[in-house]
Amino acid sequence: MRTQIAIVGAGPAGLLLSHLLSLRGIESVIVENRSRAYVEARIRAGVLEQDTVDLLVDSGLGDRLKSQGLRHDGIHLQWPGERHRIDFHALTGRSVWIYGQTEVVKDLLGVRADAVHFEVTQTALHDVDSDRPSVSFVDRDGVAHVVEADIVVGADGFHGVSRPTIPAPLRRTWERDYPYGWLGILAEVPPSTDELIYAWHPRGFAMHSMRSPQLSRLYLQVDRAENVEDWSDDRIWDELRTRLGLDGWTLADGPIVDKGITPMRSFVSTPMRHGRLFLVGDAAHIVPPTGAKGLNLAVADVAVLTEALDAFFTERRTDLLDSYEERALRRVWRCTHFSWWMTSMLHTSGDDLDQQLQLAQLRYVCSSQAAATSLAENYVGLPHELARSGS
Amino acid sequence: MRTQIAIVGAGPAGLLLSHLLSLRGIESVIVENRSRAYVEARIRAGVLEQDTVDLLVDSGLGDRLKSQGLRHDGIHLQWPGERHRIDFHALTGRSVWIYGQTEVVKDLLGVRADAVHFEVTQTALHDVDSDRPSVSFVDRDGVAHVVEADIVVGADGFHGVSRPTIPAPLRRTWERDYPYGWLGILAEVPPSTDELIYAWHPRGFAMHSMRSPQLSRLYLQVDRAENVEDWSDDRIWDELRTRLGLDGWTLADGPIVDKGITPMRSFVSTPMRHGRLFLVGDAAHIVPPTGAKGLNLAVADVAVLTEALDAFFTERRTDLLDSYEERALRRVWRCTHFSWWMTSMLHTSGDDLDQQLQLAQLRYVCSSQAAATSLAENYVGLPHELARSGS
Repeated sequence: MRTQIAIVGAGPAGLLLSHLLSLRGIESVIVENRSRAYVEARIRAGVLEQDTVDLLVDSGLGDRLKSQGLRHDGIHLQWPGERHRIDFHALTGRSVWIYGQTEVVKDLLGVRADAVHFEVTQTALHDVDSDRPSVSFVDRDGVAHVVEADIVVGADGFHGVSRPTIPAPLRRTWERDYPYGWLGILAEVPPSTDELIYAWHPRGFAMHSMRSPQLSRLYLQVDRAENVEDWSDDRIWDELRTRLGLDGWTLADGPIVDKGITPMRSFVSTPMRHGRLFLVGDAAHIVPPTGAKGLNLAVADVAVLTEALDAFFTERRTDLLDSYEERALRRVWRCTHFSWWMTSMLHTSGDDLDQQLQLAQLRYVCSSQAAATSLAENYVGLPHELARSGS
Repeated sequence: MRTQIAIVGAGPAGLLLSHLLSLRGIESVIVENRSRAYVEARIRAGVLEQDTVDLLVDSGLGDRLKSQGLRHDGIHLQWPGERHRIDFHALTGRSVWIYGQTEVVKDLLGVRADAVHFEVTQTALHDVDSDRPSVSFVDRDGVAHVVEADIVVGADGFHGVSRPTIPAPLRRTWERDYPYGWLGILAEVPPSTDELIYAWHPRGFAMHSMRSPQLSRLYLQVDRAENVEDWSDDRIWDELRTRLGLDGWTLADGPIVDKGITPMRSFVSTPMRHGRLFLVGDAAHIVPPTGAKGLNLAVADVAVLTEALDAFFTERRTDLLDSYEERALRRVWRCTHFSWWMTSMLHTSGDDLDQQLQLAQLRYVCSSQAAATSLAENYVGLPHELARSGS
């Protein structure tokens, strides 16, 4: 088969790109090795920057987001005995939205499912350094296909096949595996907080997030080698009550419907473009989840790339494709730094001096307007005219 | 002999305390194991916060400072190919002053030299947990003395005898030795810059500071185990030209009149008060010099302690003595964090990801008003009503 853009991966980045392209009359085909049910149920991020929301709304995907998304104008930062609010809206005029990645994916599949080949195997990219690249795969019925395209986009995440298609000698990576991960739970209980709580505690970081008025999402810093089997529901709630505890405040518990441990990693790989192959989202970079940047960063990549592809297909201009990597990487490094900074400030390392530096930093962020604004403007998403012009 | 306050150490902290007390009619005696010539010539810090300047001026020590000090309204932050100015005055309404610690000490000795016993040996503190503490020493003529006092103040730096007088089981320390130090030179050449340049470079941090319109002070990040003998004047200037280099800008060199390597350390020890013993400045805490906080932090300790001692001697109030440590430590941890942050942002660690995080941080600080303000307000000195009310 023949299309304009072959996209590898039907996560939010690949689906959004396909959707934005279709609005511009540009054809795309997506191949995905998981099933539609798996993709729809995969629990990931849940905080959308204003720019992400604007892009979804402007592209016609705002109905459920507007009715079910929760606008949050700030977060709570906490350490033992103190809880302080960082007021994003007062400090930056912007907000974030609580709306699960699962919901974004559902909305996108609602308009783009027909473009996706699910449950494919043996996906491979070919001739990406020529102007006739292609993607081959075997469909769920065992039939082999080749998608010939003008451009191939790798939106297949950290473990995908797209990045390794770029010859190893050309690739450069920056990486850090943190010694801890997040034990995350989804619980059927109304959140005990109006806005997210980020809690520093000598026993480790804890966080109270949410997915909806009925569904709480909570996290505990654990050793990255920890086994989720060692964490009974009771142990999890006990630990959450200890780390999130504050006089006069109670954490409500409820049935845990999902439980998992995610290791934390910072990772950037270049190039993000090789010939006719372009990487977006986790295929090129991973941030630790503290600060909620991963999904938003993927969306920003897609916005920049959409603009570049539009210029290429409508005007045969290649300048925006040529500058894609540079423009995307600027935001990638900003978010990589911010995510590392939030992570380093909130996760205990076992070092006594680090503890005091973290507490000094937290006290400062909660008492200096400049420092609070700095956190807030990164959290809500720094203005990114390049990304926005792509929407 | 008998006095109200026995002070150990005739550095800027001990001398300033003695001076401020004398203005309030409170007697003090200082013992110092170095000679007056050594104390006067010791080259240390050179950047004074506005609050430090105000305190010196308000206490009658402003004549030379006003005529010879250089007001700086900002600093330059640099990385290869780019130099950006952080405008302290525009961002915070405050400035810093270039005026060497040697000059501050000369001014203080001008009014307090008579209170100092120089070149003493065998200094020891006694009965600091009683209300009749004393300091014994042997003077330069070999005669033993005991100074009986109401209060003893340890202003004798990191290696002094005061801190170890506090029983080890009561002490708690937080410490980090950085893997690098600063090779610092004093050169008889007019500075090649109007304001200080803090330069990140893949070969290591470099800094262009100054002491006067005729005297430049420059620094290079070196391994902490490096030997100063391995650094010829030519090698130093070559390395400075490389790391500070910028198109269209030239570094003027000149005779190097002082050269030394200082290891870098973060260190905080508590308690800062034990019975009738109070620690100020480096006796209780050390910061790495990036950010120029060491001397200013010692001055802030002295300001807080002066107020507390005044209340004690004039009204027999002990509440401010009791809260000295808490009030001083708040600023100590703020400055310890800021100094660590500036140091971590600017010194290469050998890690590739760290390099990119540092560059992302530097670009952000130079492009976000909030982030620039955060650096600026720390550099000029956060408002400290407690310290100021002591002046």
